[in-house]
Amino acid sequence: MATRIGTYTLRLDKPTSIISFAAAGSRKESEGPLGKYFDCINEDSTFGEKTWEKAESTLQKCAVTKALKKAFLTPGDIDLMLAGDLLNQCIGSTYGARQMGIPYLGLYGACSTMAESLLLAALLTEGGMGHRCLAATSSHFCSAERQFRFPLEYGGQRTPTAQWTVTGAGACITALQSGPPYIREVTIGTIEDYGICDINNMGAAMAPAAYATLSHYFHDTGTKPGDFDLILTGDLGVIGSQLLHQLMDEAKLSITANHKDCGLLIYDRIEQDVHAGGSGCGCAATVLCSYILPQIQEGSLKDVLFMATGAMMSPTSVQQGETIPAIAHLLHLSHTSGKEGESC
Amino acid sequence: MATRIGTYTLRLDKPTSIISFAAAGSRKESEGPLGKYFDCINEDSTFGEKTWEKAESTLQKCAVTKALKKAFLTPGDIDLMLAGDLLNQCIGSTYGARQMGIPYLGLYGACSTMAESLLLAALLTEGGMGHRCLAATSSHFCSAERQFRFPLEYGGQRTPTAQWTVTGAGACITALQSGPPYIREVTIGTIEDYGICDINNMGAAMAPAAYATLSHYFHDTGTKPGDFDLILTGDLGVIGSQLLHQLMDEAKLSITANHKDCGLLIYDRIEQDVHAGGSGCGCAATVLCSYILPQIQEGSLKDVLFMATGAMMSPTSVQQGETIPAIAHLLHLSHTSGKEGESC
Repeated sequence: MATRIGTYTLRLDKPTSIISFAAAGSRKESEGPLGKYFDCINEDSTFGEKTWEKAESTLQKCAVTKALKKAFLTPGDIDLMLAGDLLNQCIGSTYGARQMGIPYLGLYGACSTMAESLLLAALLTEGGMGHRCLAATSSHFCSAERQFRFPLEYGGQRTPTAQWTVTGAGACITALQSGPPYIREVTIGTIEDYGICDINNMGAAMAPAAYATLSHYFHDTGTKPGDFDLILTGDLGVIGSQLLHQLMDEAKLSITANHKDCGLLIYDRIEQDVHAGGSGCGCAATVLCSYILPQIQEGSLKDVLFMATGAMMSPTSVQQGETIPAIAHLLHLSHTSGKEGESC
Repeated sequence: MATRIGTYTLRLDKPTSIISFAAAGSRKESEGPLGKYFDCINEDSTFGEKTWEKAESTLQKCAVTKALKKAFLTPGDIDLMLAGDLLNQCIGSTYGARQMGIPYLGLYGACSTMAESLLLAALLTEGGMGHRCLAATSSHFCSAERQFRFPLEYGGQRTPTAQWTVTGAGACITALQSGPPYIREVTIGTIEDYGICDINNMGAAMAPAAYATLSHYFHDTGTKPGDFDLILTGDLGVIGSQLLHQLMDEAKLSITANHKDCGLLIYDRIEQDVHAGGSGCGCAATVLCSYILPQIQEGSLKDVLFMATGAMMSPTSVQQGETIPAIAHLLHLSHTSGKEGESC
């Protein structure tokens, strides 16, 4: 079972693996630097559906189906599914999972959902509560734009700090002792709010949460940034990344040497005109499942801290003058299990 | 650690208790048959806030604070908080938990959230992932009406099948081996959809999910309805309860003798003019935390199946002609731990 190693962090005592993973996206994602690593690309962002919300459900289902297929599994082989998304009442996930018959726990962690679902899947797998658990999430540019900002037809101008919601979904399946990538520790985030109220500057709202979780992890485990090949944040974008660097520098835990952000990896920021970078639950999910997990699997990345960040406001709370609370959940993903007897 | 005893059910091997619980509500709830059992009642349903959404956050915070206080605990004594609500992006919970600094996992299970949060709290407590975990949820009549139906000022007429959203919040704290109420087994729900698309008839949409989870529990554990003092459903109301009875009768698992529904307990349906009964995340949460848990604690109820049901649609999905998927999660709550050496 998992051992608490500090206030915020749990160490998984049994080697817990991600046995399969898949990333699905659409045209803009395929045109980005990571496009070739995606498992499924549908150039048509409607995914054959009549509404953007149904398109998102179908997209998430694509990623889940592909992750199952890659491991030669069917929905009946999964003990538990953990999923969520940005849409009101998380309909992207619910409708996507409707026909699968898998015991289902719905989550809401905004853009932190890939880390939240994966850490819960890992804890429940390691604790013997499920032989195989499935973690999934999605976002869709068009469903997010009209829900959080403007109808697409309005053609609203975007601020320089705005990020572009990824049309993408990721899914991971966890099981015990099946080789890399292993999940070694997880740090559960706290809600942080530094008083940002600009809905077009999510990076600034989320950076304090990323800072809190990352510093909690280093404190709880006694590690330092240099112990990892890569510190990968969810979707801070260019503004949030700069702020996180500043906060970490001030705490004498500089991450500038080995930090990357999913929001800056997924698109060519200038060529693809995405302003401050990518965002959305699908951003961290697809970068993890397309580009990062294969590298950990083959060993070109040994130890990675994956931390997805989420801004937990709603359009209503912002209209009511509320500031934006944020959260970040972290997983230490590794090529080795860190258990005795392993040759590495 | 928890043992899987079938496809959907987990048995908690270590005695896992609900060490503290609290229910908060407003005037209409105080005027109902269970009003006197609530821990906190604020006659003013604004809870001193300027908007209904902020009122709901404050309400949830009341329940959480009271549950902590009853156990002489502070937020720092809690390892993990699991919470969610009906509001878009679950802002009732996020803003309520913002200042507490507790590691936080956001959930979305619609009106099933009290069962979802409590079963996860129980599994993670029993698995050693947290010494004390906190499960909470809330709903508010006014924030729900305007989000899901009409602005209050519109004075919309309600159909006979409509249910009244409870202005209430419940919170439970779990820990190992601290006396009754114990959580002995949990059954995680599957998403069920029988094609109901009437947003004013949630009971009908949720009854199939309740049927699926309840029959899964009896099948997995080899028990039958008569083994329990009470089978308590979340908020099926009068329509959903009748449908559940019918489905259970057909499966030769009649529950008519010992079934009650939180939606029918919380209000005087005729006197308080709530049509088909109460609903909302706060319905099952407050009935459990005000009226049921004390009876299990003192032993006047020995074995209770608590199953909260949730309708997982959104106004958008319904407007797009989608049917309403639903889910139900179940916990077996008991006065005894069921472990050897216990005198009872």
